[in-house]
Amino acid sequence: MKEDVVFAPVDTIRRFSEAAFVRLGIPKDDAVICTDVLIRSDLRGIASHGVGRLRMYIDRIRAGMIEPVTEFEVVQEGATTAVVDGHHGMGHVIGVRSMRLAIRKAKEYGIGAVAVRNSSHFGIAGYYSLLAVEEGLIGVTMTNARPSVFPTFGGEPMFGTNPIAFGAPTDEGCPFLFDASTSVVPRGKLEVLSRAGTPLPPGWVIDRGGGIATDTDAVLAGLNAGEFGLLPLGGAGETLSGHKGYGFATIVEILSASLQAGCSLQELASFAPDGSPRKQRLGHFFLAIDIGVFTDPTSFRKTTGEILRRLRASRKLPGADRIYTAGEKECERERETASHGIPINPKLQATLSAIRDELGITDPQLPF
Amino acid sequence: MKEDVVFAPVDTIRRFSEAAFVRLGIPKDDAVICTDVLIRSDLRGIASHGVGRLRMYIDRIRAGMIEPVTEFEVVQEGATTAVVDGHHGMGHVIGVRSMRLAIRKAKEYGIGAVAVRNSSHFGIAGYYSLLAVEEGLIGVTMTNARPSVFPTFGGEPMFGTNPIAFGAPTDEGCPFLFDASTSVVPRGKLEVLSRAGTPLPPGWVIDRGGGIATDTDAVLAGLNAGEFGLLPLGGAGETLSGHKGYGFATIVEILSASLQAGCSLQELASFAPDGSPRKQRLGHFFLAIDIGVFTDPTSFRKTTGEILRRLRASRKLPGADRIYTAGEKECERERETASHGIPINPKLQATLSAIRDELGITDPQLPF
Repeated sequence: MKEDVVFAPVDTIRRFSEAAFVRLGIPKDDAVICTDVLIRSDLRGIASHGVGRLRMYIDRIRAGMIEPVTEFEVVQEGATTAVVDGHHGMGHVIGVRSMRLAIRKAKEYGIGAVAVRNSSHFGIAGYYSLLAVEEGLIGVTMTNARPSVFPTFGGEPMFGTNPIAFGAPTDEGCPFLFDASTSVVPRGKLEVLSRAGTPLPPGWVIDRGGGIATDTDAVLAGLNAGEFGLLPLGGAGETLSGHKGYGFATIVEILSASLQAGCSLQELASFAPDGSPRKQRLGHFFLAIDIGVFTDPTSFRKTTGEILRRLRASRKLPGADRIYTAGEKECERERETASHGIPINPKLQATLSAIRDELGITDPQLPF
Repeated sequence: MKEDVVFAPVDTIRRFSEAAFVRLGIPKDDAVICTDVLIRSDLRGIASHGVGRLRMYIDRIRAGMIEPVTEFEVVQEGATTAVVDGHHGMGHVIGVRSMRLAIRKAKEYGIGAVAVRNSSHFGIAGYYSLLAVEEGLIGVTMTNARPSVFPTFGGEPMFGTNPIAFGAPTDEGCPFLFDASTSVVPRGKLEVLSRAGTPLPPGWVIDRGGGIATDTDAVLAGLNAGEFGLLPLGGAGETLSGHKGYGFATIVEILSASLQAGCSLQELASFAPDGSPRKQRLGHFFLAIDIGVFTDPTSFRKTTGEILRRLRASRKLPGADRIYTAGEKECERERETASHGIPINPKLQATLSAIRDELGITDPQLPF
């Protein structure tokens, strides 16, 4: 870690983010929720979705793409299910309330599912699955997103990175948490390589002609215009089963749109054809499964923990240090960051300082 | 198609398969179910899981690995959920009854899920999801399987090919059906290349040392002994996100074992350490979602159909003929095969003729 990175106390950054959201017209309780999603991303080492994203939310609220006051409307409800219209409010607030509704239904009937329409960018999908896990349930979260991924054999961005997050409790300190885009990599990974001045590995992105694209900055510049596309998990064509990543992306698209009469694919672009910003109308899908209706929760946690321990203890390839299980790295990081503070690099320091000046935030003071 | 391939009437092959299963001690109703799963695989062009597998089931029943009379026991039941012990019966029968139970619960409460332990090989996962789709529901099916897949950075087969099948109704003649192993390819794909005398594409299989393996027959010979491993979707290491395929495989493993106090990973090997055959104790997970509790089913079908149509109509890469959506190829094939008959190549003709002689099946007569 370079010397110019500042490790800021978590509480300071948390209070700063809350203050920023409140100044944008977001009610205090909602600002606390939005902030918690961002902070948890930073804690878990997913800086691409952390407080650095404050800038994006501010811009989108000011452009009228997101409503600061979230009107959370349950438009349809059954014993185990609900459909929510988020009315273009804050995705984090919509996400937390929707997963809590799914959890409540699961606690009553064993399983709960909530489909959401007209939402906005909600941060890391894993946050919502962890809400279920922290209450002892299995949690599944999916969302569609602005188009950046080519279908197999296609040269036009149709899908978002359409993540799937699946969490389950274990008998260990860390839960199992799979949280991944259905593309080879999410957009954020390109931004990380851009900052490092590194070319893209072949196999992440192709151009409209099907050519392998490795110029990181050219790709980032041309991604929104559809000159390039992220590849679905499995890569180009069918040889290494890129059609499976494409299929997973389609599943997320269906569950994020069809149950809720919502929008999909290119309807989710952040900009209208004339270039003006528009409401994004994202859809999400949340599923919570109560474990106790199937089996003794202690048995579930033990079986799951043992699966993970056997995987980690299995024979490594020559030269491999360690076999990880999903969510392990992030959980370890979370403990570490909570005590050491959130690393804020010079670029992020400048971003947050500019927000401070712009919004006139005097309390808390930033430590840089 | 070569001249020596015989197109056998579907009804003839169906009756032959039923007769074979009945002679093995499987009750007639169950033989009809097992046969329907195999026939549907052949109809959909998935010959690796079709009537050619009769040989495997016969051998396993005779070796005492599968009980011909399926004792289907619901050991735990809630409003929306059930746990089933299959007592080592026929996987197809256990699968059909379990998905029907999930469907019944979904029709009553909106969602139904059934977790199964002590089952056996149930054929194509997609069959069970289609049962839900054919009743207008969303269907999800998962199963663990005998170990053949290496974890990321691992050199020991820990996972089965752990397929996930997701089906949803559309407003088209064909439903959406994603049915795929979470490895780059399933074992059956290697068998297809072996028959064709073709080497494996790099990226499907590695050896215990991490080296790329392309000798198809050597790989097939050494897969059970752990000398080689199928790679998870995304390939070796993390560069192209092989850890995501590994994560999907882990999700399937958890849902196929932890909710049902079942077996997992290497406990699922078909052979004991001394080489003797043993009961496989597979686990499955079935989920059915009623669409009508969320939205008008007509709206769901239309939204889903439009997503698929927009994908298929999107801009193709130069040289690409067509963009498919999941299940489309198999659905087209199903109609074609139903009218032309099931293609039986010389090797399969020999297999079926040997079964006929061995079991003394005189009715129906095989057309070769």
